[in-house]
Amino acid sequence: MAKKIIPPVKGTRDFYPEKMAVRTWLYRQMRAASESFGYQEYDGPFLEPIALYAAKSGEELVKEQAFVFPDRGGDLITLRPELTPTLARMVAQKQGQLIFPLRWWSFGPFWRYERPQKGRAREFFQWNIDMIGVNSPEADAELAAVGAEFFRRVGLGPDEVHILVNNRRLMDARLDALDIPTAQRKAVFRLIDRREKMSASAWEAYAGEIGLSPAQLSGLKALLADEDLWQQSEELVRFFAAAEALGAREYLRYAPYIIRGLDYYTGTVFEARDRDGEFRAILGGGRYDNLVGDVGGNPLPGVGFAMGDMVVTLVLEKYGRLPQLSTQPAPILVTVFDADHLLEAYRLAAEVRRAGFNVVTYPEPAKLGKQFKYADRIGAKVALVLGPDELAAGKVALKNLATREQTLIDHTNLGPQLRQYLNL
Amino acid sequence: MAKKIIPPVKGTRDFYPEKMAVRTWLYRQMRAASESFGYQEYDGPFLEPIALYAAKSGEELVKEQAFVFPDRGGDLITLRPELTPTLARMVAQKQGQLIFPLRWWSFGPFWRYERPQKGRAREFFQWNIDMIGVNSPEADAELAAVGAEFFRRVGLGPDEVHILVNNRRLMDARLDALDIPTAQRKAVFRLIDRREKMSASAWEAYAGEIGLSPAQLSGLKALLADEDLWQQSEELVRFFAAAEALGAREYLRYAPYIIRGLDYYTGTVFEARDRDGEFRAILGGGRYDNLVGDVGGNPLPGVGFAMGDMVVTLVLEKYGRLPQLSTQPAPILVTVFDADHLLEAYRLAAEVRRAGFNVVTYPEPAKLGKQFKYADRIGAKVALVLGPDELAAGKVALKNLATREQTLIDHTNLGPQLRQYLNL
Repeated sequence: MAKKIIPPVKGTRDFYPEKMAVRTWLYRQMRAASESFGYQEYDGPFLEPIALYAAKSGEELVKEQAFVFPDRGGDLITLRPELTPTLARMVAQKQGQLIFPLRWWSFGPFWRYERPQKGRAREFFQWNIDMIGVNSPEADAELAAVGAEFFRRVGLGPDEVHILVNNRRLMDARLDALDIPTAQRKAVFRLIDRREKMSASAWEAYAGEIGLSPAQLSGLKALLADEDLWQQSEELVRFFAAAEALGAREYLRYAPYIIRGLDYYTGTVFEARDRDGEFRAILGGGRYDNLVGDVGGNPLPGVGFAMGDMVVTLVLEKYGRLPQLSTQPAPILVTVFDADHLLEAYRLAAEVRRAGFNVVTYPEPAKLGKQFKYADRIGAKVALVLGPDELAAGKVALKNLATREQTLIDHTNLGPQLRQYLNL
Repeated sequence: MAKKIIPPVKGTRDFYPEKMAVRTWLYRQMRAASESFGYQEYDGPFLEPIALYAAKSGEELVKEQAFVFPDRGGDLITLRPELTPTLARMVAQKQGQLIFPLRWWSFGPFWRYERPQKGRAREFFQWNIDMIGVNSPEADAELAAVGAEFFRRVGLGPDEVHILVNNRRLMDARLDALDIPTAQRKAVFRLIDRREKMSASAWEAYAGEIGLSPAQLSGLKALLADEDLWQQSEELVRFFAAAEALGAREYLRYAPYIIRGLDYYTGTVFEARDRDGEFRAILGGGRYDNLVGDVGGNPLPGVGFAMGDMVVTLVLEKYGRLPQLSTQPAPILVTVFDADHLLEAYRLAAEVRRAGFNVVTYPEPAKLGKQFKYADRIGAKVALVLGPDELAAGKVALKNLATREQTLIDHTNLGPQLRQYLNL
């Protein structure tokens, strides 16, 4: 009677080679998009003191959403739920030595204690990218352009995904014009954010509950329908012009209802979505101006975004843009003719490796048919056989696994012959 | 008055770009060595139920050495202190669908609650590589050869590092011959393991304490000095012959005192060290035959090793083999001539990016001298200037930052001209 296999922790994922290949591919695309704009890779600890998050989100929010536990010294530590506070700490620590504008990106694991569902796990990966030390709409546009460059690289076109843009200061000005007082601002932003998640009547009732008058509600509705509103914001006019110059305009769309949840954004905000609106945001970010100051450094402006690995994968799958990634371990299998020729096979494998190929050896003597079957199953293109006849003749038998043809090739000068057979 | 910067968690590390470049370089070398032998990349969750480790190390050991905390459901979970139990679980879960021999490798974070010191942190990275489904000395030799291949790739020669090899079954046979009973075996292995960490007299006293007779002690000492002992083990004779065929023999040395701490090794064990013995083991591993069975699968033999990122980095530093890694964000800086030409500069940057280059833009108008200084500080090779004169002439000014020479190049066909200037 077999023992029960211990199940993994809820909300975590096993990355078998096929899934790992997707994660590695995403990481490479994120690297390429980041580096094409001159961003440098960095990373912070995965464990952080909970106090680090107090400045940004408040300890309570972290305690609710993050894995928090006491260190053996009794201090509360957490598995990082996001990277920006770590970035702010790292910048604050070396503020005098770093070169600004500073452009940094990272890819790594994050944890949030949420209900696992499609596109959401408790342990996930996230791309973070930020520019620190510049406060300009052009810097904001550069970040949006990095996002667009990523989409272009992975084959998601502007007819499939778009980046929706708004500006907090513009919204504040418009809410001022509607005589909505500052104290009510947060509740109204929450109301706007819930617009898509409620029925029209429930949403209007909610507006009444938070104290909006019928005139204010009607003004708000007009505002949220006004796709030309951005023209009243000098910041957004410059933002879109810069994005156009950077070749990213086709992915961008002004959307007056984009708020972004976090309190700390101060200017332009944006998020990417699939155009059908089937999934949650693919990426989200914007301008924040207080963060480095909040963790103890001198205030520095910043702009950045984060993209998780899960929603973008769903979107890539939906549009059939997830490439067929090879998880073939190696193109060449070296067979073991029999026990007496095992070391000859290993020597041959070492030789082919030195010629620059990835090579799998069949680890022990077995019937050749079984070894060829293994070569097929792992996706090898050719199998090499070195038996007594080949050895005596100074040859190696090469089996093309697609055609099943076998050829004798010279043992000397193996590299070029293999490159030719493999079409390299 | 500045606020205090919140310090990071003890035993964690910040990876500023210079340090991140080393981590990424190590990961690449590990990937290349693994893939040249046809191993496939995988990963498991970073959070695991503590019960998973009970089979291998015992819950108590995990509770002492790992970060353990209750999930919100009350189950004890841990930040993985090692990967092998996760590997065993993943193999057990899909045992019927996987293709054996299975060759897998991984690189990722691990956590151990230990006193941070040189070469040891509480949060560290580790390369893990295993072959599952074959029980042969030749398979063991392949793993040792992967380790040797890594050393060769990073430029550490056999005169700088070596892989010390022993065999548990050989040791058991020799301890049998000394009439040391099975019940005493663990204590004697611990004694052998402590040989280098104690003075000779303290060590001999310790031998007496665990119950060795003077004759047994003298037999043990002779055994530990016998560098030819491996010739009595058919497994090791075959191991070294296979390692020789694989081109790894020069890195390997028989060492009768190598035990490896973990209880679960059953055959050949090995660890790599710098030849001066200055540091702890660079990598350690060996054959284990029960692990997949222990977590609930059908028993399958395995062999593998793990290498942390920290000791190998110290060894690379010691021998001057850590390469000068460029953290230059991009070879090209596009300057902003003035506010009126900002969009022209962004357009130029987008154009050069499309030609395949990584490009940094100076994000806002500033004196050209200041922008050139920034280009120098980030290590750019050339700066491009697009002012009214250049625009009128259909040219771009290219400043070679090494020679300070400025040239006008045609705006059309920029890519080939830049490739030439950058010697690409």
